[in-house]
Amino acid sequence: MSDCLFCRIVAGEVPAHVAYEDDEFVAFLDIRPLFPGHTLLVPRAHHETLWDLPPDLAAGLAHRTQRLSVAVRDAMDAVGVFNAVNNVVSQSVPHLHVHVVPRRPKDGLKGFFWPRTKYASDDDAAATAERIRTRLRAT
Amino acid sequence: MSDCLFCRIVAGEVPAHVAYEDDEFVAFLDIRPLFPGHTLLVPRAHHETLWDLPPDLAAGLAHRTQRLSVAVRDAMDAVGVFNAVNNVVSQSVPHLHVHVVPRRPKDGLKGFFWPRTKYASDDDAAATAERIRTRLRAT
Repeated sequence: MSDCLFCRIVAGEVPAHVAYEDDEFVAFLDIRPLFPGHTLLVPRAHHETLWDLPPDLAAGLAHRTQRLSVAVRDAMDAVGVFNAVNNVVSQSVPHLHVHVVPRRPKDGLKGFFWPRTKYASDDDAAATAERIRTRLRAT
Repeated sequence: MSDCLFCRIVAGEVPAHVAYEDDEFVAFLDIRPLFPGHTLLVPRAHHETLWDLPPDLAAGLAHRTQRLSVAVRDAMDAVGVFNAVNNVVSQSVPHLHVHVVPRRPKDGLKGFFWPRTKYASDDDAAATAERIRTRLRAT
């Protein structure tokens, strides 16, 4: 028996309210939702982060996230949807999961992305972008 | 000239610190980052939300998000990465953009996903999952 909670949910060893399933993915309700209808989409296979996912599963994850987002929005009479993945830091279960969260105006998460910071200067920002480009050229 | 800020950045009409670009996607630094290195990945073509994206571009978006996340993590000497999309609600620019944010333990975003709520009962959760399944069966 796996010690990964989401592998156990996928295997049916731990109960969950399943909203979607196919050969490669399962989606179930988060038990501590930001709002009702907050769903977690996971690959059946154990992959820890987004970048660990093989390319074909990454494409499949994107397509299921699209379809599930519309379904969650409409099922909950919501207006928008928040999609998020915590990789490693703030990742409560080390099995990749996409949060699909129904959103409404003035639902209390408006300040969600704050506080933000600033670059000390434009040169500082330019140097930061160059660091990322350098990494990308190396891969 | 487009009145979409991100279309104008893609067209080179508005300056940005570009971290990545190819025929279909551009990534540039968010000017008000959660943390330095916070990057926005956008399709060149104007699509407002994740579910508006054609399937081939959705797959491409997933693959670029994977690669860019690793690059941002390593370039910023970070530990994890937060990926997020705000669709409609809390979406400051109505041109799809994936946030790629470097994360470290104790970086101050630990409480990010709180406060959460609970389902009133297991029956309530079951009914919620059924509403989503019903929508999915209809599509």
